[in-house]
Amino acid sequence: MPRSRPYPRDGAGPEPGQASALTGASLNGQASAAGSPLGLHRVLEPAGVLPQAAWRLDAKAAIWPDEVRVAVTRLNLDAASFRQLREAHNGNPDKIRASVLEIIRTRGKMQNPVTGSGGMLTGTVAEVGPESSLGLAVGDKIATLVSLSLTPLVITDGLVGWDGKSEQVPCEGHAILFGRSIAAKLPDDLPAELALSVMDVCGAPALTHRVVAGCQARSSQAPGPVVAIIGAAGKSGSLSAAAARQAGAARIIGVVPHEAEAQLLRDAEGAAAGQPGLIDEIVIADARNPVVVSRAIEGAGGPADVTVVCVDVPGCEGGAILATAYGGTVIFFSMATSFTAAALGAEGVAADVTMLVGNGYVPGHAQLALDLIRAQPAVRGVFQRRLDEHGSANHSAPNHGAPNHGE
Amino acid sequence: MPRSRPYPRDGAGPEPGQASALTGASLNGQASAAGSPLGLHRVLEPAGVLPQAAWRLDAKAAIWPDEVRVAVTRLNLDAASFRQLREAHNGNPDKIRASVLEIIRTRGKMQNPVTGSGGMLTGTVAEVGPESSLGLAVGDKIATLVSLSLTPLVITDGLVGWDGKSEQVPCEGHAILFGRSIAAKLPDDLPAELALSVMDVCGAPALTHRVVAGCQARSSQAPGPVVAIIGAAGKSGSLSAAAARQAGAARIIGVVPHEAEAQLLRDAEGAAAGQPGLIDEIVIADARNPVVVSRAIEGAGGPADVTVVCVDVPGCEGGAILATAYGGTVIFFSMATSFTAAALGAEGVAADVTMLVGNGYVPGHAQLALDLIRAQPAVRGVFQRRLDEHGSANHSAPNHGAPNHGE
Repeated sequence: MPRSRPYPRDGAGPEPGQASALTGASLNGQASAAGSPLGLHRVLEPAGVLPQAAWRLDAKAAIWPDEVRVAVTRLNLDAASFRQLREAHNGNPDKIRASVLEIIRTRGKMQNPVTGSGGMLTGTVAEVGPESSLGLAVGDKIATLVSLSLTPLVITDGLVGWDGKSEQVPCEGHAILFGRSIAAKLPDDLPAELALSVMDVCGAPALTHRVVAGCQARSSQAPGPVVAIIGAAGKSGSLSAAAARQAGAARIIGVVPHEAEAQLLRDAEGAAAGQPGLIDEIVIADARNPVVVSRAIEGAGGPADVTVVCVDVPGCEGGAILATAYGGTVIFFSMATSFTAAALGAEGVAADVTMLVGNGYVPGHAQLALDLIRAQPAVRGVFQRRLDEHGSANHSAPNHGAPNHGE
Repeated sequence: MPRSRPYPRDGAGPEPGQASALTGASLNGQASAAGSPLGLHRVLEPAGVLPQAAWRLDAKAAIWPDEVRVAVTRLNLDAASFRQLREAHNGNPDKIRASVLEIIRTRGKMQNPVTGSGGMLTGTVAEVGPESSLGLAVGDKIATLVSLSLTPLVITDGLVGWDGKSEQVPCEGHAILFGRSIAAKLPDDLPAELALSVMDVCGAPALTHRVVAGCQARSSQAPGPVVAIIGAAGKSGSLSAAAARQAGAARIIGVVPHEAEAQLLRDAEGAAAGQPGLIDEIVIADARNPVVVSRAIEGAGGPADVTVVCVDVPGCEGGAILATAYGGTVIFFSMATSFTAAALGAEGVAADVTMLVGNGYVPGHAQLALDLIRAQPAVRGVFQRRLDEHGSANHSAPNHGAPNHGE
């Protein structure tokens, strides 16, 4: 695998010629006659805030000249959000379904009021405003890569097709894309469900790639950096591992919470025998215990130059910080990350580490992630196993599913 | 002012020869026979977590061989914490005092259960364990630079000397420093109260310096980066502006919430006439309104290459992100920052910005900040005005005091 692939380019804009697959938008935040590209005209309350911060959006079907209306076929709820709903309703599918419907009805968007997070959706483009710059055409099958937490949404089928047991929600309704949104056409060569779950977490591998490549560039004396992935058997974790490898990581340590997750990783690697390995050493440790997880990573070749947090459970900040070398970087992708715990945690142990808020948007992120899935059978194996799990009633790893980030 | 000053060094360890002023500690997180340098032996519940994450610490006066006991003379409560206490008790000093006492009594540390934050303290070294590596001697007057949220603390005077009206809490009692802690001796040439308030926020200028200097190094074609400071008239904001200037910023835009804050900045600059200016353009805008603040910064010469968030009010994430140039960096120092709002906010507007969790620890941070105060009369003027404000009953800017970070 070429290590020098200049992708995604550090600090650069959207890749030229990419608009056909990953449609970008104007980066000008100013309102135009077409309405605000940021969707400010859809905010009902409180007035003047961005759609993500709004309590309630106007989700009516009629579009502004720069908007796109999508006929929704499926919601993919953010993992932290679905987990909260499941726990709040003791796993009762009817109550979970009613709760989701009520949120969408009252807020005009699927933003969990407790977690603040949303998810993503797939659908078919139903109408394109004359001033839209998203490059979409009626009939295109797409996934939105901006969060449901800011996407105007109406559900019309009462979610009758959803069993309430997983974050995959088949449904009917419509959603609105603003002038400055991000949507990706679903690729022809991959199953839609697989592509969707890949694009859902595509911010994580893209930022991991950028950070690891940056380490490489700074210290030209090989070998490359040591990378620890906390939650390596999850979706964003396995993709981030693949991205780290492509970007030049010398050693990749994968942390998983128990043997079943370790076995899932081994199975995926075994099924891809002969291919480059995804993880160099798998360690089993509770990521919420800073002392345990940092010692485990140290024992596996750490401390890490780059630590990537991909588990959606609270309390993983301290372990990630302690496991990271002086001068290293921690990337927090988990939506369960506490800003305060990270800031005070690093200070409390006098750790000079760079801590990044995992931005779900990096130019070219969907394409990078889809290419990793195509190139690395082990990652595809992890995703297939995760999708199969969701199809069954038995969630073997409820606490360590991949965070639905990049959402 | 020399722009090439190699300080603080990027990714380097503590400065050699610095131990006399800023005492560092072993960076080895492993437990030793002396007890854990991280203070694990002081954690009562839940077992096995780091002291910052603990509900309750053992604050007994007897020290382990690598610990230091400090006779406490003053607490400096974190601004977010004090604000929460003041609002929860409607500003009633007796209730605020009782609440602080109760927190310390039940938790063995001053960590506000709502905000999760603490503050810092000053005192006199009372006992030094034989295996301590902090370089302290009995009788040294010091400030702790690790948060009160992880520092074992006992108050013995019932806080009778505190009026309950400001975050400066004169008191008697003892606190414990672990093997791996950070404490700074109070300088002889500055008033203690001034030095304390400088060291309290010294993480912000140090990290700002590093980031701005990094921008400079990457793009050697001058001019330097545009830096926006949100909360520029506060303590961490004004220090960060001075650090940005020293690190080579070409233009510094200071955002303040209202005219009184703008006037405070102008007064401080005026009193330091003839010195290099602290802020190139002051703009008045509500940082909680992304649209307003980003347009204000754009109008003042933005977007910013580096945006520094130094106000302790929630909801400033979106504005900071929108005000930052594609490929730029946002540094969040406010403890009121929401991780979710930052992550989803950037993604929601397709903003390719690097977002940093403001780590309160950067090697050499206290020294850098004290040197800025000595060199820049305008910053010292801001601090003096803030200290005078605290001395009076009239808080002219209750919403935009500097975050007590680096706390």
